[in-house]
Amino acid sequence: MNTLFNQPLKVVNVGLQSFASNIQKVGGEVIALSWQPPALGNIDAGHDLASLLHHPLVEHANQIAMARYLSAQPALVDVMPASEAIPEMAHRKLILHSGPPIRWENMCGPVKGAIVGAMLFEGWASGHEEVEGQILAGEVALEPCHHHHAVGPMAGIISPSMPLWVIENKTNGQRAFSNFNEGLGKVLRFGANNEEVLERLCWMRDELGPALKAAVRHLGELELKPLIAQALHMGDEVHNRNAAATGLLIKRLLPALLACNLPGTSVQKVVAFITSNDHFFLNLSMAACKAMMDAAAGVPFSSMVTVMARNGVNFGIRLSGTGEQWFQAPANAVKGLFFPGYGVDDAAADLGDSAITETAGVGGFAMASSPAIVKFVGGTPADATNNSRRMQSITLGGNPAFTLPALNFAPTAAGIDARKVADRGILPVINTGIAHKQAGIGQIGAGITTAPMPCFVEAISTLAQIVAKGEPQ
Amino acid sequence: MNTLFNQPLKVVNVGLQSFASNIQKVGGEVIALSWQPPALGNIDAGHDLASLLHHPLVEHANQIAMARYLSAQPALVDVMPASEAIPEMAHRKLILHSGPPIRWENMCGPVKGAIVGAMLFEGWASGHEEVEGQILAGEVALEPCHHHHAVGPMAGIISPSMPLWVIENKTNGQRAFSNFNEGLGKVLRFGANNEEVLERLCWMRDELGPALKAAVRHLGELELKPLIAQALHMGDEVHNRNAAATGLLIKRLLPALLACNLPGTSVQKVVAFITSNDHFFLNLSMAACKAMMDAAAGVPFSSMVTVMARNGVNFGIRLSGTGEQWFQAPANAVKGLFFPGYGVDDAAADLGDSAITETAGVGGFAMASSPAIVKFVGGTPADATNNSRRMQSITLGGNPAFTLPALNFAPTAAGIDARKVADRGILPVINTGIAHKQAGIGQIGAGITTAPMPCFVEAISTLAQIVAKGEPQ
Repeated sequence: MNTLFNQPLKVVNVGLQSFASNIQKVGGEVIALSWQPPALGNIDAGHDLASLLHHPLVEHANQIAMARYLSAQPALVDVMPASEAIPEMAHRKLILHSGPPIRWENMCGPVKGAIVGAMLFEGWASGHEEVEGQILAGEVALEPCHHHHAVGPMAGIISPSMPLWVIENKTNGQRAFSNFNEGLGKVLRFGANNEEVLERLCWMRDELGPALKAAVRHLGELELKPLIAQALHMGDEVHNRNAAATGLLIKRLLPALLACNLPGTSVQKVVAFITSNDHFFLNLSMAACKAMMDAAAGVPFSSMVTVMARNGVNFGIRLSGTGEQWFQAPANAVKGLFFPGYGVDDAAADLGDSAITETAGVGGFAMASSPAIVKFVGGTPADATNNSRRMQSITLGGNPAFTLPALNFAPTAAGIDARKVADRGILPVINTGIAHKQAGIGQIGAGITTAPMPCFVEAISTLAQIVAKGEPQ
Repeated sequence: MNTLFNQPLKVVNVGLQSFASNIQKVGGEVIALSWQPPALGNIDAGHDLASLLHHPLVEHANQIAMARYLSAQPALVDVMPASEAIPEMAHRKLILHSGPPIRWENMCGPVKGAIVGAMLFEGWASGHEEVEGQILAGEVALEPCHHHHAVGPMAGIISPSMPLWVIENKTNGQRAFSNFNEGLGKVLRFGANNEEVLERLCWMRDELGPALKAAVRHLGELELKPLIAQALHMGDEVHNRNAAATGLLIKRLLPALLACNLPGTSVQKVVAFITSNDHFFLNLSMAACKAMMDAAAGVPFSSMVTVMARNGVNFGIRLSGTGEQWFQAPANAVKGLFFPGYGVDDAAADLGDSAITETAGVGGFAMASSPAIVKFVGGTPADATNNSRRMQSITLGGNPAFTLPALNFAPTAAGIDARKVADRGILPVINTGIAHKQAGIGQIGAGITTAPMPCFVEAISTLAQIVAKGEPQ
């Protein structure tokens, strides 16, 4: 001790900056290490976390879950109405929404607006009050897309007549679904439900859906992993940037579409619709990611995150080893760029199932592939690259199918380990669009957000109980 | 001196490594600075170069040339047969080829093979010997594309019946031209001239050309600079990688094509042809770059490089201030990746007008935009970025229309200054395909090469004489 204090001291301060500042004030040399206690400093949760780290049951389960995720081969195989793809929708009045479960009373403006639009579109009601009456009377059920192997961006509304992309994981034969992208402007997914929106939905049901069904059937099937991999080499991260992927899709779909002997005017409208929307591929990207994550779901004891989704109020996650259970917390704020005339006060809380892309290792996790996206979500290309690098410390590994040129073709970080998130205090990064909090105004910006820590801490505690019992949930 | 040698010496060695090695051998500390004398160490050329550096006439001329290059707005405005686009081709039997002028006897295999193919296609001859006879008898003229505001990749052959892209610089009304890309495999531009090649040329003349003419006319015009700028943000450098640009072109052309009421089978063939060729945009990229560089040509006293082109034997450049004169030297070797089964002994010398892309600040100069291209041309993404950075030291400035995400949206280095090349010993970098030296085998690899220094040294000496006289050429 004497020897120590007789020499010039170099102090490393761990945690609170105020200790470091005091040393600096009296002329001492100090390095401030950014550190927070794991599991939000909650002692019980900390013990739960400690019980899971390096636990052989969890390690083994994660290997299985990760291998199933990696071996998934999602292919676009068909297009069909939701009522055909999801049998539950044929038997009862059911509307699907994004994120974890939520009651009508608690839903945010855009989601309510979109549900109204969907019920008008289905002809179940003729106005907002009738919609509300039917829902409160229990005549129409509202359930998460994720409860039906489906995903939808923003409000994520799927009603029985909407055409869906049908993705099949060729490895296990399971299917995943997503609705079609409507483009920008006044659209249902941002809560708009006026005549223009409903007319477009009818056209998508009557003309776009059947045309794309014919094209996909003619194509046989379209493997989506190679297409996503190629798009990652072309500046997309396939969440907020899908320009290249949409182009690649067009190159495959259009020759097939032209071979289907459809009326010329119909083909023209379909082609004009798809070619004018750089986000058209997003819903396919999401469904492909859903298929990959569904493959990893349900592995007993696994701490791998298989769902991250937002309902406009809460952020919810699911782990592979905790069954159907959701772990929820209020959504974190989005840090981003707003379109002219809008600001943070106009923004709805983080919304949509599109964080399934990050769950699958693309989107924010693959931002290094998409330096130009910072023009849309803010920051610098270096930030984008650092986001991808940082995610490597909370994932089970990398996905060699998705490589990042800017990181010398490193595989994208994939397979979020809830233990690592809680232990290291590093939150999954998510690229996201920002919706106006009022229904129907639409997108007002885009930016970067994170998954909230309490979800992961709660999930860890639940998993710890399951592992302690040694009985799979 | 005494004081100097009494302290430990740190030596900086400039030039030859052997001096540094000797010092290291006896235990000395030495930093070896990579340096070569300017202008290849030629004393006369060095004086010429010195006379031009900072010369007000040259500086002023370069400002004008650069401004004209920057303000060019190349737009795709039409498609027409070469004989219509280039009036000289209607009056006499004329075939255009890539690179600087070269006599038939000296041409390389692929160029000869392509000329044979073009003459068979035109019905001017029925075999190789008849072709050679007519050319040697002076019945058919062979001239560089660049002498007619045109460019063509590899052999670069343009004959009167071939459809050309017509690009107009909206700033000055001047037009530039390029032929259509034939795809990969057995193609004329690599010297193939069999039945398959000729049939494709006939189809391009009879069906593809008229269809694209109708589509372009329907579109009105298509500005190419914004399209190239977007492609640079999508992993293309629009020389050896045109996957994104081709996708963007398809998104604009196809809706127009569908609106032209062409026969369904014709549209299907056209769409299948374009969507199956990721290099389809290359020829448009080249013609757009040609239009930009033609805008900068002919500024008296300017040392800006307006043409770099290869004829399979020699590399040639032109400066803005030296009129129509070519400065030539044997082409440098290509360092690259060969397709399986081929090696450096099979390679033709560097060939084609496609280096017009580098002349205009894209291609190798914009490699930082295209990290994934190293899978095609070799090296690492860091090499690609370094190439773009290094080019900043031999150019007059940057092109703010073309920005590079990986360099935090820095403008691409553009406007090669022949003085800086000769002074700094840094050669313009060029991404290039590698042709087999025998006609008709096709592409056997791709890689990176440089423009040879003697071209620049000779150009500088010629410009120095013009500037010394004070009379523009």
